[in-house]
Amino acid sequence: MDVTKYNFYEELESILEAIEGSTFLSIDGEFTGLDAEGSCHIAPFDTPPERYSKMKNGSTDFLLLQFGLCAFKVDEEKHLYEAKPYNFYLFPSQSHRNAPDKRFMCQSSSIDFLVSHGFDFNKVFREGIPYLTSQQEHEMKSFLEQKHSEQNNQSFTVMEVPENQREFLEGICEKINTFMEEDDAEPLEIKDCNGLQRKLIYQTVEEKYPLARLETRTGEKKERYLILHGAKDAEELAKIDRERQAQQMMELDIQVGFTKVIQAITKSEKLVVGHNMILDILHCMSHFYGPLPNDLEDFKSITSTVFPKLIDTKLMANTPPLKEFIELSSLGEMHQTLQSKPFNPVIIKVAPGFEKYSEEASSLHEAGFDAFMTGSCFATMCKFLGDCQKPVTDFLLPSSPVIKAFVNKLYLMRIADIQYVTLDGPDLEVNRDHVFHVTFPKEWRASDLYTLFEPYGNIQISWLSNISAYVGLHNKKNSKIAFEVLSKENHSFQVTSYAFHHRNKTLKLST
Amino acid sequence: MDVTKYNFYEELESILEAIEGSTFLSIDGEFTGLDAEGSCHIAPFDTPPERYSKMKNGSTDFLLLQFGLCAFKVDEEKHLYEAKPYNFYLFPSQSHRNAPDKRFMCQSSSIDFLVSHGFDFNKVFREGIPYLTSQQEHEMKSFLEQKHSEQNNQSFTVMEVPENQREFLEGICEKINTFMEEDDAEPLEIKDCNGLQRKLIYQTVEEKYPLARLETRTGEKKERYLILHGAKDAEELAKIDRERQAQQMMELDIQVGFTKVIQAITKSEKLVVGHNMILDILHCMSHFYGPLPNDLEDFKSITSTVFPKLIDTKLMANTPPLKEFIELSSLGEMHQTLQSKPFNPVIIKVAPGFEKYSEEASSLHEAGFDAFMTGSCFATMCKFLGDCQKPVTDFLLPSSPVIKAFVNKLYLMRIADIQYVTLDGPDLEVNRDHVFHVTFPKEWRASDLYTLFEPYGNIQISWLSNISAYVGLHNKKNSKIAFEVLSKENHSFQVTSYAFHHRNKTLKLST
Ligand SMILES: Nc1nc2c(ncn2[C@@H]2O[C@H](COP(=O)(O)OP(=O)(O)O)[C@@H](O)[C@H]2O)c(=O)[nH]1
Ligand SMILES: Nc1nc2c(ncn2[C@@H]2O[C@H](COP(=O)(O)OP(=O)(O)O)[C@@H](O)[C@H]2O)c(=O)[nH]1
Repeated sequence: MDVTKYNFYEELESILEAIEGSTFLSIDGEFTGLDAEGSCHIAPFDTPPERYSKMKNGSTDFLLLQFGLCAFKVDEEKHLYEAKPYNFYLFPSQSHRNAPDKRFMCQSSSIDFLVSHGFDFNKVFREGIPYLTSQQEHEMKSFLEQKHSEQNNQSFTVMEVPENQREFLEGICEKINTFMEEDDAEPLEIKDCNGLQRKLIYQTVEEKYPLARLETRTGEKKERYLILHGAKDAEELAKIDRERQAQQMMELDIQVGFTKVIQAITKSEKLVVGHNMILDILHCMSHFYGPLPNDLEDFKSITSTVFPKLIDTKLMANTPPLKEFIELSSLGEMHQTLQSKPFNPVIIKVAPGFEKYSEEASSLHEAGFDAFMTGSCFATMCKFLGDCQKPVTDFLLPSSPVIKAFVNKLYLMRIADIQYVTLDGPDLEVNRDHVFHVTFPKEWRASDLYTLFEPYGNIQISWLSNISAYVGLHNKKNSKIAFEVLSKENHSFQVTSYAFHHRNKTLKLST
Repeated sequence: MDVTKYNFYEELESILEAIEGSTFLSIDGEFTGLDAEGSCHIAPFDTPPERYSKMKNGSTDFLLLQFGLCAFKVDEEKHLYEAKPYNFYLFPSQSHRNAPDKRFMCQSSSIDFLVSHGFDFNKVFREGIPYLTSQQEHEMKSFLEQKHSEQNNQSFTVMEVPENQREFLEGICEKINTFMEEDDAEPLEIKDCNGLQRKLIYQTVEEKYPLARLETRTGEKKERYLILHGAKDAEELAKIDRERQAQQMMELDIQVGFTKVIQAITKSEKLVVGHNMILDILHCMSHFYGPLPNDLEDFKSITSTVFPKLIDTKLMANTPPLKEFIELSSLGEMHQTLQSKPFNPVIIKVAPGFEKYSEEASSLHEAGFDAFMTGSCFATMCKFLGDCQKPVTDFLLPSSPVIKAFVNKLYLMRIADIQYVTLDGPDLEVNRDHVFHVTFPKEWRASDLYTLFEPYGNIQISWLSNISAYVGLHNKKNSKIAFEVLSKENHSFQVTSYAFHHRNKTLKLST
């Protein structure tokens, strides 16, 4: 089901119910870009903190345009799930006048990619649901509350009316007199006055019209103008104030928009499943929670407060026994693989009203569909793991201890020896004795490195600059001899151990 | 006429003819945003270099999505113009594999604005014409030329084939043997090899297959693979090389795309008219010429090489005698005003094939339409200025000396005393003795400043921070006495002259 700002409030209740009633949730996001210009590329010998920092710096200026959420509810008797896939269009337009005018980055290749998969940019920009980070929401709420409690208690210095403003002010007062005498008049608009004149009008109204209430508004062309409300008595005046305050609180609530869905996920404490989901989680945190911290451990701790239970299906697919049967673990290919032997796809019934997606009619790269696919892969993988148990568990549920091994581990792409970051604990320490840091003349190419390491077998190169690289030996047994030979010689190149170089780098960063 | 990448090459010839044959051109742009987060806002006491620097820093990360160009050709006998309005959709998708993957910024409020005026984002992202700056074009061209001249002269070190790659290489060689024996076979694709394997294939082919030619390509998933071309003899091999080089040059040419239109405008040396056009010119220069220089004087000199003759209709509208009759100088309102007395709108005939716009069917804020409107306002203003001459010039042309006074002056918004920046000369020096720099406690509000300056009449405040502002007296006669009184006293606030503060600021910047 597509959800835009036009049907969001209509559907919100049932969305929250679907979350509450689910066995597990799956999510997916579509973004305006993947890596910022000049940001460091992810590399095979990144450590988890390095990877986090690269992804944080490279991705958080981009926008999350589409959020897919699919609620899966198990039918334990029939051994099937009912799915409710939602495809949310998101855009931070300024529905609320104090809302931030968000600047965001786009990457041409990502826009090309979305366009080629039929993404509707007009729809997302026109009908996207707004959102605020929890931090912004709290700030704006306290700001409003303070303003409301201060109402009538603000102390503005009273100034003498300058000679050349007297006539102007008299004209305004005449208008106000007429207005206050009318019954049930529409609020009076006072346009075309500068800041000085607005100040004079404010102080005049406060002095002479105890039953009137002024407010400053901003027009279409960013011009400021005044609105005057009139009351018959103190009681009506209090009512006007209450209504205005309620109106402002409601506008804030509308701007909070989609963030309510994330808050409901948090509250539900449900298991949230994603495919290669670290980027989705970074975006969720920075769009709906607040700016990402610099430190990975801080990121872990705030993420656990928002998403207490996460599972990454890409990690499952790359872990035995599933790994042995899943060669290609991109979402589409993995889903394809899970349709046939040795796998036995779990039946997913799309709930009535959610017919937009069926597993046949592929809308790959639409967030709602990808979330739906991810969840259905997850169900099938759980079932397969059940079949692998001794004795066989007939229809293994996500709550099983077998699945627990995957909870709160996010897959790290293209790192051979550290497959995941652990959200609820310390990360793995690995041995990288087979990796060397090499510096060389800038004329060197890959082939020179291949030649240098040729006696020790095949290598993996990870360029750090045009004069340095990490080089990993495929054949770890050769590590010692390679290091002994290459580190001793004093040539145009220099070889040090990974550990030595990494320690120095970390030392440099922390001083 | 809408121009996208689908009809650009079909129309290019006639676009270039329309430019060459025009009396003058008018332009307009639509952008993804106006001012970057944290960039300084334009302010009433900016100097031209300050304003340039604020606009440069605030605007160049945004994208120019739509470029309006209207060619006007006079019919001197009939006293009318024929107009050819073009509305170009622009987008830097990567048609060429070496083209930059451009990152760009968007501003929510600008997206909201475009959406509310019916802007079609799907069309611009899907059908936009690519472009390159002249700098990028030259770099890419020299890169290709060098690559082509080096062909076959590159020196790659030959490495011994590692044990575990022998079998793989033999398999490849078998494939190549079969392929080379076939007649007129399609080029052979060699997929799924890593960098080492590609190197081994390259050196094997160079050694063993003198009539074969390899190239590396990048697939959809960014994976690298090889293509092998086979020739019957040296002559055919040379032909393959020539074709590949021609193909690469053509791909570059396609990526240059819309920049050809700008280059034609430069070559034509035609007068280019815009409305409040400084931002349009900044974007044109940074999109089609190269990164904007830091210094205003450098900007002036490169701009003159691209657009030798510019006129800003907003400056005309704010200069007597037009100023007396044009109260509101935004494009739509100005156009409205120019339809009736004392003005006498010039007849604009839309050329056959360009019927998309008529002056009635408003498409305000579509770049092609705004360019069309701007040019037609310009024609009517010229005519009005002719009517003001003594003796009257019946149908004053843009080439008249009367119009010369406006050439190469770009309007500066919201600066009272410096109306424009002069592109072909030094800027005006102005007296700002009536302006003061004031620092004060952070509790101060506007009202405190009004109170402080109350004895000297109305003021204009330009906030610099929460503890400082420029304050301008409306009544300049009071400047001396205000300065004497306020600068002497040693209070919680401090008042210095504008000149003193500005000199210090400039000194600080240059050291
Ligand atoms: N007496 C009084 N003055 C006010 C009040 N609100 C704003 N002002 C003053 O009126 C002037 C104009 O304020 P406002 O209309 O909010 O526009 P702004 O200055 O652009 O924010 C400022 O000098 C404020 O200090 C008020 O409630 N009472
Ligand atoms: N002998 C030879 N080696 C090449 C040639 N072009 C590339 N190579 C080598 O082949 C390897 C793979 O290069 P390439 O396929 O361009 O992929 P890249 O390394 O990802 O840029 C590198 O080690 C290059 O040095 C060539 O024309 N001749």
